[in-house]
Amino acid sequence: MKVFIAQLEVIPNDPQANTKKIIAAIDQAEKDGAKLAVFSEMAIPGYLIGDNWERPSFIEECVDCQKEIVDSTKDKNVTVVFGNIFPDNSHGRKNEDGRMRKYNAAITCRNGVVARIQVKCLQPNYREFDDNRHFYDGRKLMHDEQSPGVNWLQFDSFCTSAWSPVFSPILCEDGWDSDYTFKPMSQCGKGVVINLSCSPYTNGKNGKRNRVFSNNARKYQTPIIYVNCVGIQNNGKNIFAFDGGSCAYDRNGHILNFFEPFEEKCQTFDIDFEDDFGTEIGVLAKDSSMDDFPTDITQKFDKESSFYKNCGFLYKSILYGTTKFMSQLGVKKIVIGASGGIDSCLAAAIYSKIVGKENLLLVNMPSQYNSKTTIGIAEKLAMNIGCKYISIPIEESVELTKRQIPGLSEFALQNVQARDRSSRVLAACVSAFENEEPKGLTVFTCNGNKSELSVGYCTMLGDLSGFLAILGDLWKSQVYGVARYFNDNVEDIIPEEAFSVKPSAELSVTHNVDEGKGDPINYPYHDKLFASWIERWDRATPEDNLSWYMDGTFNEKIGLKNLSVYDIFKSPREFINDLERWWNLHAGFSVAKRIVGPPLISLSRRSYGYDMRESQLVPWYSLKYKKMKEEALKE
Amino acid sequence: MKVFIAQLEVIPNDPQANTKKIIAAIDQAEKDGAKLAVFSEMAIPGYLIGDNWERPSFIEECVDCQKEIVDSTKDKNVTVVFGNIFPDNSHGRKNEDGRMRKYNAAITCRNGVVARIQVKCLQPNYREFDDNRHFYDGRKLMHDEQSPGVNWLQFDSFCTSAWSPVFSPILCEDGWDSDYTFKPMSQCGKGVVINLSCSPYTNGKNGKRNRVFSNNARKYQTPIIYVNCVGIQNNGKNIFAFDGGSCAYDRNGHILNFFEPFEEKCQTFDIDFEDDFGTEIGVLAKDSSMDDFPTDITQKFDKESSFYKNCGFLYKSILYGTTKFMSQLGVKKIVIGASGGIDSCLAAAIYSKIVGKENLLLVNMPSQYNSKTTIGIAEKLAMNIGCKYISIPIEESVELTKRQIPGLSEFALQNVQARDRSSRVLAACVSAFENEEPKGLTVFTCNGNKSELSVGYCTMLGDLSGFLAILGDLWKSQVYGVARYFNDNVEDIIPEEAFSVKPSAELSVTHNVDEGKGDPINYPYHDKLFASWIERWDRATPEDNLSWYMDGTFNEKIGLKNLSVYDIFKSPREFINDLERWWNLHAGFSVAKRIVGPPLISLSRRSYGYDMRESQLVPWYSLKYKKMKEEALKE
Repeated sequence: MKVFIAQLEVIPNDPQANTKKIIAAIDQAEKDGAKLAVFSEMAIPGYLIGDNWERPSFIEECVDCQKEIVDSTKDKNVTVVFGNIFPDNSHGRKNEDGRMRKYNAAITCRNGVVARIQVKCLQPNYREFDDNRHFYDGRKLMHDEQSPGVNWLQFDSFCTSAWSPVFSPILCEDGWDSDYTFKPMSQCGKGVVINLSCSPYTNGKNGKRNRVFSNNARKYQTPIIYVNCVGIQNNGKNIFAFDGGSCAYDRNGHILNFFEPFEEKCQTFDIDFEDDFGTEIGVLAKDSSMDDFPTDITQKFDKESSFYKNCGFLYKSILYGTTKFMSQLGVKKIVIGASGGIDSCLAAAIYSKIVGKENLLLVNMPSQYNSKTTIGIAEKLAMNIGCKYISIPIEESVELTKRQIPGLSEFALQNVQARDRSSRVLAACVSAFENEEPKGLTVFTCNGNKSELSVGYCTMLGDLSGFLAILGDLWKSQVYGVARYFNDNVEDIIPEEAFSVKPSAELSVTHNVDEGKGDPINYPYHDKLFASWIERWDRATPEDNLSWYMDGTFNEKIGLKNLSVYDIFKSPREFINDLERWWNLHAGFSVAKRIVGPPLISLSRRSYGYDMRESQLVPWYSLKYKKMKEEALKE
Repeated sequence: MKVFIAQLEVIPNDPQANTKKIIAAIDQAEKDGAKLAVFSEMAIPGYLIGDNWERPSFIEECVDCQKEIVDSTKDKNVTVVFGNIFPDNSHGRKNEDGRMRKYNAAITCRNGVVARIQVKCLQPNYREFDDNRHFYDGRKLMHDEQSPGVNWLQFDSFCTSAWSPVFSPILCEDGWDSDYTFKPMSQCGKGVVINLSCSPYTNGKNGKRNRVFSNNARKYQTPIIYVNCVGIQNNGKNIFAFDGGSCAYDRNGHILNFFEPFEEKCQTFDIDFEDDFGTEIGVLAKDSSMDDFPTDITQKFDKESSFYKNCGFLYKSILYGTTKFMSQLGVKKIVIGASGGIDSCLAAAIYSKIVGKENLLLVNMPSQYNSKTTIGIAEKLAMNIGCKYISIPIEESVELTKRQIPGLSEFALQNVQARDRSSRVLAACVSAFENEEPKGLTVFTCNGNKSELSVGYCTMLGDLSGFLAILGDLWKSQVYGVARYFNDNVEDIIPEEAFSVKPSAELSVTHNVDEGKGDPINYPYHDKLFASWIERWDRATPEDNLSWYMDGTFNEKIGLKNLSVYDIFKSPREFINDLERWWNLHAGFSVAKRIVGPPLISLSRRSYGYDMRESQLVPWYSLKYKKMKEEALKE
């Protein structure tokens, strides 16, 4: 069967642009002689558009666009399947919020007629997904209609022509049914299953998808065509890169064809679903997890390790997501506060690949506490990149503030410096650089990473600010890894000294890198600890951490290798003091910082922002924890 | 029947504290001789705790706390009903995200035994609510068990003793069933219905609740006891004040007893549900809407108008929410940038009632553009309040920035001033003021309002910053109204000139208030326009606005009274230019500002933040709009 697979870039909130592209693609499919053309989920409206689903005029336009697409198939021989929002006001139906009833639907059409409308049954409501907030699901519809199960594929009210079950469209989560009591795949019959998806890149998800879909194909003895879009979509705080990776599986779960990730591509395949000649599952790289996180992050990494390979995926996703997001905003030029630390070095290296060296300005902002070492790294970085570099000292401004506002403590003055750098210098540099030829929209960056965000090790109105945190979903250990990957594989421009210098904020004499002083975070250990609080599907709390410490399983539970918690903390008291210090920050004041933090590129299975929703609360310690602690301190 | 109603303040995320309070209340109920004691929904864990539901140790503690409460009823004669999270791993059950299955449940116990567990059936997934994200609802459970409808009150697996249907507990949304196909109230039998709620204050909601519950009581001929908590809970960006308002209705829908809002109170009532002697519905004030928004916001308001009365409710909610939030954070002292404008005047007036004048510092930060008029207002305000006041000019810092960073445009220098005020001066003042005796946690405020937030008329790292925006859900017109209400009813401390001076940012010569220049926003008109984009349940877009303008229904559709759009804009061209100017900002760059904006006190039916979720997108104009515009401009 000749199948046209359209892995298109969908522009969220722009039905007109998406529709044009779809119609052009259908023309191509017809020319290719394809029998079937498949597009992704929500191919007309896009998917992550916040609460814009509440605008009736927007929904109406999506309906009009659908009509245009259906009309375009009038004199063609190709059957077209695409995702769209589908409103339903028949029989007085409404959504449960009282608004217009809307389905997340797959539309099948041919010869200018809608042949059927398939409603998404399994709707995700975790991480960044809020399907139930906007869409009425197919299961509820079945229950309402008192027709459980068997008729789910054909809602008579939507079918305008008899349906021959050559293929069954389902939508994204419908194919991920393991945690649901209803299994859409089991209702699909023996034809080809087409999974229309709108599924963002997540570290490790592609490997899992291959396993899930391959198993489903085998289990139901059904070939599966998976179609996903590319591009970016966001939910305010989180920018998600959609990686495509569209793919066809035969009935034995073997891959017949697949598209490269992050590439917009339409192609017709002659897929013989009867044959079994595909790639073995597992040949595609299984994205790695944090399992082999390095113990010494300043070293060169084993290039064969999954940690290192994974850093390559992370780099590509950051590059793609950032490029697309900047293009959507129209950003042409970038200002970076370059301290000489690894974060700003990596950020500058990546941005140099996006805007070009001529549109990149590095600003070093020394105070009395900045070492020649780090200033030297920043200078060398700019020289390696070949971009503009200026130094704007902040001492005079800090002195003015001290004079105007007496009584500032040593700690307060650290924050004065950090705020002066971002809010006064960098923000003004943006305006000045923007006015330089060639003019173009200019912004400054936030170079913060996930480790810092986890405990609020950053200053509000200071280094927490910026238009986007491209490293905001990378643990510090991963920042080193991606930086090393960049130097090894992209361009060797990050100075080697940036890897070996002690990470430090350089805001006081206590941060002197030349004396080996710096951040209070022991990254190889704390990255893992912090990750246990947010990245585990069942999130850990101090109660779990302490019980692991006490029963000797901590290293194993948290994934520490070549590094032992029992070497770092010699007694329960030391362990508990450190644990509570960071937990108080993580569950306390750092939430307030994250609330006003910039958007970030989401990469992991759990990123800060809309993906992991947080309230400002008093840090919680369970009664069990309190008792365990009392016991532990007695010993 | 003697019923003990507990309108307690629930501390979200603090099961131990909430449990102590509940147990003490049960003791009191027993002493009072109550037969039944009722608490609110999620009385143990709290409700708005972000994604903390994903922590198994937290859920376990809630279960332990429940056991404590149930145990405490051992030797008592009172039946106790309270809300809690209820995990269920029987029969291998899981949530659909693969995590632990959890119900939002009402627990009924007596004599130390759980008598039954009622699962919430109707789960809200709009505005700030995400019930389906965490909780498995009773309807799905019914469908899974193939027992639709009739048995919903008794899931055998949960019932440890025979249930005599003297009363039926339901949960919050179960009582708001008009938009759902399933009607829990219809299944409740003839006993008393107890509605356990956790329902935040929303402008106008109490009036609606009275109508809904009263109608339900009449329709089903069932008395209803409504129990709601007080306190605050938040979802990061939005602080919600829970106003209680617990209430008993007889079977004819008349109010038998009700609790004052925002008051923690437990009381035993002898409620004779058979009699019909209650207060007529409608006697409780119907909270007003925006209907009689004033045309001239600087005038004194008609004290009998619903607009003015409503400003009283708004003031009380702001005062309550802010007081509680500050107490949760431990904030003792406040720094306010006092410009002499109405926003900072009102903020200072309100905070003076919370922290006291000795803990309030007003900072005026003049540049060359600030008029004696507004500086005079700020001084007078501080004098009226009797609080500390300092003036810290920003010219020297602005000059330094100009010198260090050449090439700043006139517009860029406006933002330099705004950022200098917040990020340099106010933030440092916080540190200095915090160190003064009596020491105490100090923060500075964001005085921004909803009109400014709607279109991003504020500077990032400047006046957009602050720990909390207490006026962030008030339209500018409402700011004037609440300020007037404050002067009339609380204390006459806001200088009269603050009402009459032109609203202005005073960042350039084009903002000279003494020449009557100032903000580009025509508040009485634009407040209504902006509200049409966000506060209507079916949100309007330029397509709707323009069609109203063209067909002559604009004033009526948007609720303009004594003011006509056709006087403000003499031609479609003028109207369209203005419309697109603000829509581009609202749907464009201002989203980026709101993403990094501070939390706010939510008051309206739609506040920015988690209540109205936004993606950064390119502003959308429908094809219909484009055609309509083309036609309109032809004329």
